[in-house]
Amino acid sequence: MDKINGWQESKEKKRVDVWKYKTYTCKAKLMDISTGSRIIVLNEDEAKEHDIYSGYRAEIKYKTKTLVTIVDVSNKLVNDGEVGLFKEIFDELKIKDGEKIEIIHMNRPDSIKYIKDKLDGKELAANEIDVIVKDIMANRLSQVETSAWITSAYIKGFTDNEIVGLTHATVKSGDTLNIGQKVICDKHCIGGVVGNRTTMVVVPIVAALGLYIPKTSSRAITSPSGTADTMEVLAGVEFGIDELKKIVLKTGGAMVWGGGMNLAPIDDKLIKVRHSLSLDPEGMLLASILGKKKCVGATHVVIDIPVGRGAKVPYVQRAQELAHHFIKIGSSIGMKIETLITDGAEPVGNGIGPALECRDVLEVLKGGGPDDLSHKSCILAGKLLELCGKAKKDQGYGVAHKTLMSGKALAKMRQIIEYQGGDPNVKPDDLPIGQYNYDVNAIKNGKIFHIDNKAISKIAKIAGAPKDKGAGVYIYRARGDRVENGDKLFTIYSESEAKLGFAIKALEYLEPIEMRKMLLEVMD
Amino acid sequence: MDKINGWQESKEKKRVDVWKYKTYTCKAKLMDISTGSRIIVLNEDEAKEHDIYSGYRAEIKYKTKTLVTIVDVSNKLVNDGEVGLFKEIFDELKIKDGEKIEIIHMNRPDSIKYIKDKLDGKELAANEIDVIVKDIMANRLSQVETSAWITSAYIKGFTDNEIVGLTHATVKSGDTLNIGQKVICDKHCIGGVVGNRTTMVVVPIVAALGLYIPKTSSRAITSPSGTADTMEVLAGVEFGIDELKKIVLKTGGAMVWGGGMNLAPIDDKLIKVRHSLSLDPEGMLLASILGKKKCVGATHVVIDIPVGRGAKVPYVQRAQELAHHFIKIGSSIGMKIETLITDGAEPVGNGIGPALECRDVLEVLKGGGPDDLSHKSCILAGKLLELCGKAKKDQGYGVAHKTLMSGKALAKMRQIIEYQGGDPNVKPDDLPIGQYNYDVNAIKNGKIFHIDNKAISKIAKIAGAPKDKGAGVYIYRARGDRVENGDKLFTIYSESEAKLGFAIKALEYLEPIEMRKMLLEVMD
Repeated sequence: MDKINGWQESKEKKRVDVWKYKTYTCKAKLMDISTGSRIIVLNEDEAKEHDIYSGYRAEIKYKTKTLVTIVDVSNKLVNDGEVGLFKEIFDELKIKDGEKIEIIHMNRPDSIKYIKDKLDGKELAANEIDVIVKDIMANRLSQVETSAWITSAYIKGFTDNEIVGLTHATVKSGDTLNIGQKVICDKHCIGGVVGNRTTMVVVPIVAALGLYIPKTSSRAITSPSGTADTMEVLAGVEFGIDELKKIVLKTGGAMVWGGGMNLAPIDDKLIKVRHSLSLDPEGMLLASILGKKKCVGATHVVIDIPVGRGAKVPYVQRAQELAHHFIKIGSSIGMKIETLITDGAEPVGNGIGPALECRDVLEVLKGGGPDDLSHKSCILAGKLLELCGKAKKDQGYGVAHKTLMSGKALAKMRQIIEYQGGDPNVKPDDLPIGQYNYDVNAIKNGKIFHIDNKAISKIAKIAGAPKDKGAGVYIYRARGDRVENGDKLFTIYSESEAKLGFAIKALEYLEPIEMRKMLLEVMD
Repeated sequence: MDKINGWQESKEKKRVDVWKYKTYTCKAKLMDISTGSRIIVLNEDEAKEHDIYSGYRAEIKYKTKTLVTIVDVSNKLVNDGEVGLFKEIFDELKIKDGEKIEIIHMNRPDSIKYIKDKLDGKELAANEIDVIVKDIMANRLSQVETSAWITSAYIKGFTDNEIVGLTHATVKSGDTLNIGQKVICDKHCIGGVVGNRTTMVVVPIVAALGLYIPKTSSRAITSPSGTADTMEVLAGVEFGIDELKKIVLKTGGAMVWGGGMNLAPIDDKLIKVRHSLSLDPEGMLLASILGKKKCVGATHVVIDIPVGRGAKVPYVQRAQELAHHFIKIGSSIGMKIETLITDGAEPVGNGIGPALECRDVLEVLKGGGPDDLSHKSCILAGKLLELCGKAKKDQGYGVAHKTLMSGKALAKMRQIIEYQGGDPNVKPDDLPIGQYNYDVNAIKNGKIFHIDNKAISKIAKIAGAPKDKGAGVYIYRARGDRVENGDKLFTIYSESEAKLGFAIKALEYLEPIEMRKMLLEVMD
């Protein structure tokens, strides 16, 4: 008892959690709900006695297993001596209703201190960012805390060192692909432009020339189709990392769903919260994109930044800043990056929606198809060829175009489709398109001033895309075209009559194609 | 169909939610869980078809009732055509399992735009703050969004106009007390000091002199006792607003639990998130405290800001800034405020824990008790008397002390206890104290250098306070006291032998009483 009163000249100051003595035992009670985070519900009064409150962390112990959980409290749902377990935890512990669990009060994780430091304007060290990412991955941080982290990143910004730290932490949060090659290509598009399926043309061109390009893509979050959704019309896109490795080593290229593997899983967790806040802090955007490229071992990367009304980046100056930043951070992590600022003001290609986009892609690979999709794909592929020395300066476009026109890219696409479990002999017209359709025609003469990404996207989604693969919009005209009264502008396709009806009704409020107008507004 | 293609010279630009056509119907499925926020769980694929994602809002409609809810999605828990309802919603709608509900996609609430404006550094107008507060009250904002609001308030700070706006919005978020008097007194303490039950001495003194002081207090959040917990040993503290009015009009004073009424309910919602983040943005602190005072109609308020090691405000300069800010904002909302910066480095009074604190209070009201509690209460009461003109400048202390010593304050306290349903003839020794106790004695001679609020608080809580009213700590010595080996320093009381054991064990790691040390550290 010598230490009790501190009557020692040099009492050792240990940071010890005195509450570890307050471990207590509860009976498990199944709550038939799952939320993706490890939440337990304790009786409020009982928890308070153990200094545990809503939002606190508790470790739970069952047999030899322990889990870190976030505490919710309730006096109504759980009685004294009970602990409510969400379904995920129930399954994870393989516990039965009524069995006993130990509840152990925990200190706040260190990551909360680091988040607080960030709020106070401090630059975080790489190891501190690591801890934050690890704690988010382990569900040790609540949504409230993760939100504070993202908000602080948005307001305070990240230094380059922090972005590099977050990129490495992103890579470490999951698995990595190692195909043992010196040069590995990749491409990425910042997004916001509908249609725009350049990946499905660039990958076969680049792979046809003997390069490796293990492309992972996302599914649609709020758009009418992600590259993974579109590719899925032709072949499987859900593969494990070992399967991906086999496909890439065999064919040079692959187009798979990134979310199907454990690549940079931290990103999904952050995106969920960022999406809910509509916050896209630049540092997190860079770390997210470059982390994912690093995960697949990419050494040479072309990044497409579409600019214009309705695109994610509204004007060129902003795109240039972002481009410089990509190149700088890329070089810090040993990645050669070239950024291309492209016209993102209107859709690329004619088809919008998984199957309609696939038709465009196959036509382009056959040497025809929409000009803009074909042209843009050759630009991107060409720059990638130049970047990794496969083509001389300013000759990349020519090499890419030749590969496309020669049919080599199509042959490579068919090989990739086969290795991803699809039909290598697929023809554009084989792909089923929604049986219900509706033509929208011009009702007077004029010139097309703008085709709106967002409005087209909404119509395609209301019609059923991306879930209904055959749903979407097919556009016949481009910006600047002169049209006459009665000319067909676009067709809406749907697999359901009701959905087509909704899409038609939405036209009353949307203006997907704007004509040139002289008088913009009258002020009273 | 004239409008479809925008081929009109002056198309009316309406902001219309096209998704309103995407209302759909689901069968209700009870989720046996409640979280305090209105969450529904939709089938992920089905929700996506209706452009609804995790974190979005949806209105649900059942018979004539509609509710705004936050969406969670899952493909495992709910099937196509089902909607999972948390228990609160189930009860609120009075719906049965399997009955049909309409799901209506909603636009983002405007408050999210205002929060984003705040993140971007814009000053918010009063009506914008109103909308944010209303949306939080209506559960239209998720925890992620509320967290972003608090984080932005912390990083960006609030202007005085914003604080005034938030104060008014806080008042409007719930009910108000109107006792129809011109002068209404109140007091508040920033907190962090254990013991410190000045309210229970100040209120009877002030009320005994004919003033009105309708005091609402909180229960302990993380401390061993809140004023409401301590008062509850003597009388009821949970009253409706009409009952409070009756008590105050009859006796002049009242000491009730603020959380039992619908006063400034926004505050509880914000505190839950702030507590989880450990963030206390000054603007929110001011609006919270002054909003609550405004709710009860207070016109003259004394605010106690304890300062020192372990207190909430660590040094005097910070306390002065805060004091000036209180006075300034108070004047903007028509409230006369005086702030007192007090010594908060050690506990006030001897007893810590509900019943032990009550014994101190009753002894003080009888003219004895701990000197510091008696002295500090007279200072606070005296300043309040001067502030509202009941005593001349510098004479408040004397008037308060006389009222205390004359027994008038005790008589007033007995009257208040009676009106709050307690026993007016209660004696200090009547109050039951934990039957298990343990004395901690000095083990050598020395001088007390520091008594630690946080360590004392932890010991009292481990011993069972505030849930076990008789649990806590009784301290016999004060800072600066000379003690000899074997002198009794403090006693731990508990209602349970096990809890007492835990509290004793915690002493190994805590240093509630520090002796003076010459050698602080040896650096190698």
